[in-house]
Amino acid sequence: MDLSNSNEEVPENVAKNVLLHSEPVLNREVTYGPTGEKLKDITIKEYCKNIKKMGFQASNIGKAIDEINKMLDWRLSDDEIEPDESEPYNDIEYRKKVKCTIWLSFTSNMISSGLREMFVYLAKNKLVDVIVTSAGGVEEDFIKVLGNTYLGEFNLKGSELREKGWNRIGNLIVPNENYIKFEEWLQPLLDEMLEIQNKESFNWTPSKLINFLGKKINSEDSLYYWCYKNDIPVFCPGLTDGSLGDNLFFHSYRNPGLKIDVVEDIRRINDLATFIKKSGIIILGGGAPKHHVCNANLMRNGADYAVYISVATEYDGSDSGASPDEAVSWGKIRADSNPVKVFGDATIVFPMIFYSTFACK
Amino acid sequence: MDLSNSNEEVPENVAKNVLLHSEPVLNREVTYGPTGEKLKDITIKEYCKNIKKMGFQASNIGKAIDEINKMLDWRLSDDEIEPDESEPYNDIEYRKKVKCTIWLSFTSNMISSGLREMFVYLAKNKLVDVIVTSAGGVEEDFIKVLGNTYLGEFNLKGSELREKGWNRIGNLIVPNENYIKFEEWLQPLLDEMLEIQNKESFNWTPSKLINFLGKKINSEDSLYYWCYKNDIPVFCPGLTDGSLGDNLFFHSYRNPGLKIDVVEDIRRINDLATFIKKSGIIILGGGAPKHHVCNANLMRNGADYAVYISVATEYDGSDSGASPDEAVSWGKIRADSNPVKVFGDATIVFPMIFYSTFACK
Amino acid sequence: MDLSNSNEEVPENVAKNVLLHSEPVLNREVTYGPTGEKLKDITIKEYCKNIKKMGFQASNIGKAIDEINKMLDWRLSDDEIEPDESEPYNDIEYRKKVKCTIWLSFTSNMISSGLREMFVYLAKNKLVDVIVTSAGGVEEDFIKVLGNTYLGEFNLKGSELREKGWNRIGNLIVPNENYIKFEEWLQPLLDEMLEIQNKESFNWTPSKLINFLGKKINSEDSLYYWCYKNDIPVFCPGLTDGSLGDNLFFHSYRNPGLKIDVVEDIRRINDLATFIKKSGIIILGGGAPKHHVCNANLMRNGADYAVYISVATEYDGSDSGASPDEAVSWGKIRADSNPVKVFGDATIVFPMIFYSTFACK
Amino acid sequence: MDLSNSNEEVPENVAKNVLLHSEPVLNREVTYGPTGEKLKDITIKEYCKNIKKMGFQASNIGKAIDEINKMLDWRLSDDEIEPDESEPYNDIEYRKKVKCTIWLSFTSNMISSGLREMFVYLAKNKLVDVIVTSAGGVEEDFIKVLGNTYLGEFNLKGSELREKGWNRIGNLIVPNENYIKFEEWLQPLLDEMLEIQNKESFNWTPSKLINFLGKKINSEDSLYYWCYKNDIPVFCPGLTDGSLGDNLFFHSYRNPGLKIDVVEDIRRINDLATFIKKSGIIILGGGAPKHHVCNANLMRNGADYAVYISVATEYDGSDSGASPDEAVSWGKIRADSNPVKVFGDATIVFPMIFYSTFACK
Repeated sequence: MDLSNSNEEVPENVAKNVLLHSEPVLNREVTYGPTGEKLKDITIKEYCKNIKKMGFQASNIGKAIDEINKMLDWRLSDDEIEPDESEPYNDIEYRKKVKCTIWLSFTSNMISSGLREMFVYLAKNKLVDVIVTSAGGVEEDFIKVLGNTYLGEFNLKGSELREKGWNRIGNLIVPNENYIKFEEWLQPLLDEMLEIQNKESFNWTPSKLINFLGKKINSEDSLYYWCYKNDIPVFCPGLTDGSLGDNLFFHSYRNPGLKIDVVEDIRRINDLATFIKKSGIIILGGGAPKHHVCNANLMRNGADYAVYISVATEYDGSDSGASPDEAVSWGKIRADSNPVKVFGDATIVFPMIFYSTFACK
Repeated sequence: MDLSNSNEEVPENVAKNVLLHSEPVLNREVTYGPTGEKLKDITIKEYCKNIKKMGFQASNIGKAIDEINKMLDWRLSDDEIEPDESEPYNDIEYRKKVKCTIWLSFTSNMISSGLREMFVYLAKNKLVDVIVTSAGGVEEDFIKVLGNTYLGEFNLKGSELREKGWNRIGNLIVPNENYIKFEEWLQPLLDEMLEIQNKESFNWTPSKLINFLGKKINSEDSLYYWCYKNDIPVFCPGLTDGSLGDNLFFHSYRNPGLKIDVVEDIRRINDLATFIKKSGIIILGGGAPKHHVCNANLMRNGADYAVYISVATEYDGSDSGASPDEAVSWGKIRADSNPVKVFGDATIVFPMIFYSTFACK
Repeated sequence: MDLSNSNEEVPENVAKNVLLHSEPVLNREVTYGPTGEKLKDITIKEYCKNIKKMGFQASNIGKAIDEINKMLDWRLSDDEIEPDESEPYNDIEYRKKVKCTIWLSFTSNMISSGLREMFVYLAKNKLVDVIVTSAGGVEEDFIKVLGNTYLGEFNLKGSELREKGWNRIGNLIVPNENYIKFEEWLQPLLDEMLEIQNKESFNWTPSKLINFLGKKINSEDSLYYWCYKNDIPVFCPGLTDGSLGDNLFFHSYRNPGLKIDVVEDIRRINDLATFIKKSGIIILGGGAPKHHVCNANLMRNGADYAVYISVATEYDGSDSGASPDEAVSWGKIRADSNPVKVFGDATIVFPMIFYSTFACK
Repeated sequence: MDLSNSNEEVPENVAKNVLLHSEPVLNREVTYGPTGEKLKDITIKEYCKNIKKMGFQASNIGKAIDEINKMLDWRLSDDEIEPDESEPYNDIEYRKKVKCTIWLSFTSNMISSGLREMFVYLAKNKLVDVIVTSAGGVEEDFIKVLGNTYLGEFNLKGSELREKGWNRIGNLIVPNENYIKFEEWLQPLLDEMLEIQNKESFNWTPSKLINFLGKKINSEDSLYYWCYKNDIPVFCPGLTDGSLGDNLFFHSYRNPGLKIDVVEDIRRINDLATFIKKSGIIILGGGAPKHHVCNANLMRNGADYAVYISVATEYDGSDSGASPDEAVSWGKIRADSNPVKVFGDATIVFPMIFYSTFACK
């Protein structure tokens, strides 16, 4: 093909396809990033004000910030009184005090990470109303009061770590000594629980156990201490799946008889969802904690506000990777809501949101 | 830079860096793929014999096949009798009959998919010994006996689906009518369970409930029917997290009093892990089912064989994405084992493995 | 909360939300999997006939098979003759022989894997019409004629490998000796190319170079030998980005003057796209090869058929992870087409499709 | 199993496995997060000082910050003078002025996002020394001078967008009018380039074209204007793969004859890599730009410092997802270096790093 003497025209259709005229884009923001100039000491909050303009997941962080600020700012007085509204909800002054119920769910690894301290802040300052997590998400908080979790590397060799008794969680290390301390702390408390059960016909549930342990740990470093202190219910549908389970197993040999009933807790969480006026859900990661918050919100025909932060994608059909729009189909998030999913590791994404929402209240 | 008259040499170090001499590669297979020639009607099993040579995740499928075949083929007689071995394990003939205990864990979405029929085959033919799953992984099996799950699309709009009452799971649709049928079937059975509890001081647990429902569904299409039939224990540490929970919640209004204890089940699964002679774990997806199988195997200082199939990656530190080597650090998989993780959607990966392992036994 | 004496009703709205009646699902297939029974020696092709019913990505494999079979089966005679159609396209008999042009793009790693042998089959049997790949996708084919690629492990330590001169590609190993052999083979050919350039004012382009090398390698094991043999153009927009580039760099010292022009190739590929009657694109992986095929198809207002196979997701806005629907917005895939993306490693996914499409023709 | 009267002991081995004693963890930091208290107006830089303690990818951001600060702070005077060192490198004062060469590679979508403004800052302030990108990464910078890129949504329907002429890039929209403007701006410049070629026997290469266009765009908003201004070479091994290619294609009809040679550029980039004293690479995303930077660094036996930011994982063997340790095996990153990969979308991750490194210099 010798092109040098070509006198041909660009094929007409080609030009039309490539140089198709477009409709003007109206009412949409222009992508733009910070320039660095004059911004060297920018605060996270300041930076995040314009983060939506960055595009891709940075934009989604911006939307998540807006969504959570809506959860925090909403008051029942923002909505008109419905004709059949009963007392005290028909009183304007009362309505000004009724807030959106904020649910927080997270997976075990996040308690192992430095996010735990942010969760403590949320519970201490009553900025969330319900917590749902996995067994590890419960026990690792107590364990951190008893011993440290350390920074390691993702590629440390498992067999060498096992020899040292160092348990790896991603790039973190939990020495097994911590679990020994946990066992020493927990076994007498399980004895006490068994006594209470037998004396008072007390029906233990995961949420009651967490509350009891939150009280007993008695440390301001503990998330569940603050939940106990501030009456924030904590649900854990799979309580036995971890070191708590190991300890209940040991206890079933040493001092058998303790029972933990899960029916009363499902009644409790669903009742809670049913009778609130507004519901905002913040879901970090996937698993049962994610599903459990969504499922409870089905009772009320869906959450009003929703933020997901996760690295999981939906293509394998797992609930962990399911988009908020999948939850809409189930009635777990409302059809008229504007849920946001940010794809990213919560250790990166959540702090940026935290400083632009909760930390400002 | 006019290069046309250059008489220079390639800089010496550069040539050394780029054209570094290498040690010969010994005892490693050569990457190679099938050519298509003469192979048009190749069976899955035949194809998978050479799949390790393909590279990347195809190689991992090949390794997973080997690992599962080891689980299936192992007999206690393969191992020497230990000096302190007690009866009947010191009897050679008895040892020939002692097999590896195979654990299967999967997430709810897999029961919704066509993998369910393969799981039914496994239970019917006693090819797995213990099952651990999530609430959805239990209830969707029963629900499929009562109504169909349909093929849809990932991008169907949530709000339109909710209007129709079509619940989306990835690219599948479960009409809400199925949950109505499930409620109608389940509520009288919960009444019956409550009666048994009250009459016989029976302590219900998730595994007992699943066994009871497996008997009651009485359908050869049901996985848990076959588990009931063949005495395969099924554990579900988060039983209330789904439609079963919704029904227990309803039942707590209609006919209150039923309790489900999770302590007895953790005793049961851990005892089971403790006293087996060999342990092989097959983990499809993540979440609590994955962790629960691994955690039980900690009781015995780790599984001997392990296969993970998942799309989750480890970089966010979640247990769902954790590599088998992370489980080694915890003592959940043995340090001297050769665990395999295949990255991929189980609906693609598991059938290839199935036809090269279980289906051949 | 003592529930044992409750006489309450389930809150009315709750029951309505959870037990919402649904519209019947019509004209949709029921999810269903193979049972294992009677299917022990199932062929891949047989198995894939029902793979759509599996759900999730297995369903997408089924759709991809249908899409590629459409590409293979289409003839111009299937479409009505347009009024202004010129010769010879207005002749019915001629139209029966005009096929869909099939584009195949893949990344370098796939040539390193066993997929190469399948690509060879495609080129040998003229089952694809245009190939677009990266530099590595070109040179690794020639290098495999000169030396072996071996199976390794993903977690082999880089510093130890470098000492041995073993280059890692995922879980594959290419000993550096192969690159020495490639350099020895290639340098004289570059001399020859320079001679041709200088004597004949020949304008070398990437596609001409690949054709030339395909001829010179003269091995039936080589993909580009068959492309040369069967006049299948191979485009590589980033030809210098690899060992070919290293060699061109060396050559610019040793025997300077060779030029490779990329303008003529963009003219060639776009002309090709412009004048074909039907276009089907098969995109394995991402990168420039993916984009280049799509961009060429913009010339003709989009491909008619499209299959993507990739593990990349779209949330970071990269073209590698972009869905087919993003290409539709650009006019690179037609708005009235039914493109399919399968999420999965091509070493697993492509063979299943291959045996259900190309291998049957 | 009635456990209530059990008097058994926990099986001895079980207790040993679960409560294994561990070695103390020495010299490792304790995981810890910010508490929110007193930190409401924390700057990004201040926050990132402790981000390593967060765990998971937040820790990797911390490491990336350290690595880039090392690149920025290094001076040749930090290293001892080698015995055979030639002038002027044996002069201490001269050595104090010799910096690490910093390479930046990114994919097209990042120029479309707000990261572009940060890249402009880097070029304007001479904080990077070499840029490598894809065709889109070149042209979208110029196009943004001519028209806006807007914020959209990931799920906008492709067929509707095509009707409007709105091209989607993730959640961004580029109206096709921008490409018309680009064509109008570019065609006369291509004429000019052809004239220069013909008059002066000028050998055009991608890097020369980008420099020429950077001069011609003459806008302080443009990244390549600043690269032109500050003599920062920009390489683009796949220059024709985008709108630049479309325009070269058109030009080959309208005014044929322009050639762009890629051999001279590979000589240029490899020479550049060969003769620098220290090399630090910052790789955002994957594709040819990533590989090209790594490959050039092979000439010098590897980069000394390396930071990757990407969402791609290595399990499919693609170079885009390859870890830094894979590059070590090839000699593209030095065996004694400490490369860092952060898993995450660059629009989130890079700004945090930017404000803690480049913006402080």
